[in-house]
Amino acid sequence: MWIFLNDRFVPKEDAMVSVFDHGFLYGDGVYETLRAYGGRIFMLRRHLARLRRSANLIGLNVPIAELDWQPLLQEAMKRNVLSDAYLRITLSRGEGDIGLDPRLCPRPTVVIISLPLQPYPVHLFQAGVSLTVVGVRRNLAAALSPQIKSLNFLNNILAKQEAAQKGAFDGLMLNAEGYITECTTSNMMFVKEGCVCTPSVACGILDGITREVVLSLAHDEGFPIQEGCYTPDVLRHADECFLTNTTMEIMPVCDIDKHAVGSGVPGPVTGRLRELFRTKLPRFLE
Amino acid sequence: MWIFLNDRFVPKEDAMVSVFDHGFLYGDGVYETLRAYGGRIFMLRRHLARLRRSANLIGLNVPIAELDWQPLLQEAMKRNVLSDAYLRITLSRGEGDIGLDPRLCPRPTVVIISLPLQPYPVHLFQAGVSLTVVGVRRNLAAALSPQIKSLNFLNNILAKQEAAQKGAFDGLMLNAEGYITECTTSNMMFVKEGCVCTPSVACGILDGITREVVLSLAHDEGFPIQEGCYTPDVLRHADECFLTNTTMEIMPVCDIDKHAVGSGVPGPVTGRLRELFRTKLPRFLE
Repeated sequence: MWIFLNDRFVPKEDAMVSVFDHGFLYGDGVYETLRAYGGRIFMLRRHLARLRRSANLIGLNVPIAELDWQPLLQEAMKRNVLSDAYLRITLSRGEGDIGLDPRLCPRPTVVIISLPLQPYPVHLFQAGVSLTVVGVRRNLAAALSPQIKSLNFLNNILAKQEAAQKGAFDGLMLNAEGYITECTTSNMMFVKEGCVCTPSVACGILDGITREVVLSLAHDEGFPIQEGCYTPDVLRHADECFLTNTTMEIMPVCDIDKHAVGSGVPGPVTGRLRELFRTKLPRFLE
Repeated sequence: MWIFLNDRFVPKEDAMVSVFDHGFLYGDGVYETLRAYGGRIFMLRRHLARLRRSANLIGLNVPIAELDWQPLLQEAMKRNVLSDAYLRITLSRGEGDIGLDPRLCPRPTVVIISLPLQPYPVHLFQAGVSLTVVGVRRNLAAALSPQIKSLNFLNNILAKQEAAQKGAFDGLMLNAEGYITECTTSNMMFVKEGCVCTPSVACGILDGITREVVLSLAHDEGFPIQEGCYTPDVLRHADECFLTNTTMEIMPVCDIDKHAVGSGVPGPVTGRLRELFRTKLPRFLE
């Protein structure tokens, strides 16, 4: 396995960073996860734009020119003979003396990991997954905005651990005010009387790119859409529920805290959106 | 410079971790900062207890036996010929496949960095430092408790950057409710009519070890102590203000948002506590 590290491809065992890298010392950095279908990357420019935004929000310079990313990601896939791929760009503050000041680090660290895509098991898409509303709240936007896709992932890890202890596939986090936000690596949507509903960005979520695509597909298909602030009790009366992210695309949710969503099996709107996603997919590949 | 990495001391240039270390990918880990005076470590057992607590709170196993830490830290100082030293123990989840699940990482990574102590310049202690109340709020305790001394430091880094932009030495963060918490790497105390006041742990702060020591010194000296929830406007009427942490011990604050604290110079209570700290120091060394 080849990893791109700063300025060249190195074998996995040589893909090391200093223990003085501020990404390791402080989680000082940002990342993006991308997916390629047959070597073409889903929503590449949007992902790169978000990487730039995340980096800007923490005052980090992106050391790769905008136009160089695509050939670099293509090269990463080629080196590892990948066609359906998972790609992770990590951008850390780089190596520097101990201290919080970003100026201690003259050069950001760039890492590109590319792996064969490991799709979620088919039976999860067929039966749906179980969620639980976890006690761990989503990061306060005023403390560390969920819109910064950062290397500070303990909030999500703690939520994921809590969900695992409760036997659920994932945990749904509320914000400080008690409104639904998102799961640990996905956005959440639910369907109520034909309307596709999802927490608005103002609730303190990452504005997922698959979320955006699914909302646009739903809109074009004529489904009413509502972005709002929802308390978890609305889920008791939802007809359908699903998760979205780059690697799972659209994942049906069959129950939340052991309470069946709708009839407890993936519903027709979820099915229709999954179908549309697959049909329209080529237009989202770059 | 020698760094302890997992099971042995390596030269700094070989102190590297995989880009698959979850400390680097997700900031999944905890740390402690210690200080040695003439080779003896300040409040060693309390620091180790807190490391254990932080690790427990994220479900991370500490792979070094309790009694092995002291010889290891001593060896770290000896290797680098240090007497007055700064020590940083970093404990990350270790190397593992991509994913939030801690079970992906069979072995935690242990790093001990030991450096010559670089004391803060004397003039800062003489004149005091400037603070500013920053817009960045302290992490929500229910999202990622400030009591976990974790590798997720972006909250503090963003606050530090904001303070630097405003020309201040450091930023004072408020919690979600608007109460004073702490600065980016120190606790804050203020003096009002002879009473030593400081935000209570319930406000969402790290319960600093130097904070603890200073409160006990103040108590033994007969100063009234108050731990509470304070809005930043109380600082307008404070007589004195100071910061505490392991490396700065007690640092006077001369102004907050360009408004002088008391007479704008380090006050008598701060001075007395600094004197007591220095006098009683030997009893805190292990």
